[in-house]
Amino acid sequence: MTTAALQPTERSTVRRGKHRVVTDRAVLHRILDDALIAHLGVQAGDHPVVLPVAFGVDPHGPDADGTLYVHGSVASHWLRSAQEQTVCVTVTELDGLVLAQSAFNHSMNYRCAVVIGVARPVLDAAERERALALIVDHSVAGRSATLRPNTAKELAATAVFAVSLHEASVKVRAGGPGDEPNEQIPDTWAGVIPLRRVADAPVTADYATAPIPPEVAQCDLSAQNSAQTGR
Amino acid sequence: MTTAALQPTERSTVRRGKHRVVTDRAVLHRILDDALIAHLGVQAGDHPVVLPVAFGVDPHGPDADGTLYVHGSVASHWLRSAQEQTVCVTVTELDGLVLAQSAFNHSMNYRCAVVIGVARPVLDAAERERALALIVDHSVAGRSATLRPNTAKELAATAVFAVSLHEASVKVRAGGPGDEPNEQIPDTWAGVIPLRRVADAPVTADYATAPIPPEVAQCDLSAQNSAQTGR
Repeated sequence: MTTAALQPTERSTVRRGKHRVVTDRAVLHRILDDALIAHLGVQAGDHPVVLPVAFGVDPHGPDADGTLYVHGSVASHWLRSAQEQTVCVTVTELDGLVLAQSAFNHSMNYRCAVVIGVARPVLDAAERERALALIVDHSVAGRSATLRPNTAKELAATAVFAVSLHEASVKVRAGGPGDEPNEQIPDTWAGVIPLRRVADAPVTADYATAPIPPEVAQCDLSAQNSAQTGR
Repeated sequence: MTTAALQPTERSTVRRGKHRVVTDRAVLHRILDDALIAHLGVQAGDHPVVLPVAFGVDPHGPDADGTLYVHGSVASHWLRSAQEQTVCVTVTELDGLVLAQSAFNHSMNYRCAVVIGVARPVLDAAERERALALIVDHSVAGRSATLRPNTAKELAATAVFAVSLHEASVKVRAGGPGDEPNEQIPDTWAGVIPLRRVADAPVTADYATAPIPPEVAQCDLSAQNSAQTGR
């Protein structure tokens, strides 16, 4: 499934910067794999409210082209208001600052995935458990298997929503600045400042006596910085 | 101005996780200073569209409690559709993964600012120039002063919008996991994986012969990771 091409719908067609559009669905999944949070936009009255959320991905379903899961408190008015509404889930990895010789050509290197779809409330018990495990494992692969089962009280307090990965678009900007050849000024510096995320050594909670487990010690939370690759 | 308290309106009142709400406007400005991109939510028909944007901040100017500026192509239908509409500008700095002994108590350490306001088109020539300089200097302080002036063509191709910082809310989560004392399991590891952004050495464009200037060599793009501080 991840080898299929993204087939933009009216809503997921990129209208600006078409040269930066990537239609390989595998790239969408790599960006989702790299990212640790998404920004979820939900309509609230006459304006959107955008908040950061953890998420999980099931590339094989059950929704068309795979499913992205988000969760939160059942008491969250913001999250509840997403139910059966069309939402926007945006994931951005920032790879570098692009400093041109003109302010106009300043840019950033980034990988951005935008998913638009209806927020389907996940009510099936098995799908809920699977979604919650996917969300935990999205940060630290294998973590969920090391945890005690969710309690009925915890499950009752948690709202889970699914968004199909069908309507998705991807834009990637990489490489150096784009000053026009006829506008280049040798004595003004231009270039890229590469950026990346790093994880420091885990800090054990004072109430935990177990050693750091391999899935935590070995998890790679660094993004696959592509700022040095061609545009 | 940055010493004033955030005074939430109906729209900017945090309803969940009130213990994480910060009302010190100086904290809002520190988060905005740290962040390199924002996620801008704009209503598009029956759903929001959220995209990453560069931004600049004028803490003293002209809108109530200061102004946040975004810019883009005048040909951007998405950005144009924000005009005079209420938008949501969300800035999130991710400081760590919080791994609890229960899936339910897994969390993240973050600093998040949410600004809701009307996107005011910036038409005044002087304010437009100032806004564009603030956006460049937001990434690399002092950079704009080293660049040639914007051309009339560049200015004509650029749309600039201002959002007041009046309706803003801030949430901060820091510190360790929050497993309930009566639920703690000594043999399950719990803790925090601190995360931070690092900048690698600048990569000079092949057409730039000038040496790396001090404002680029010295700019600090690392976020002020607060994951180790108390909750």
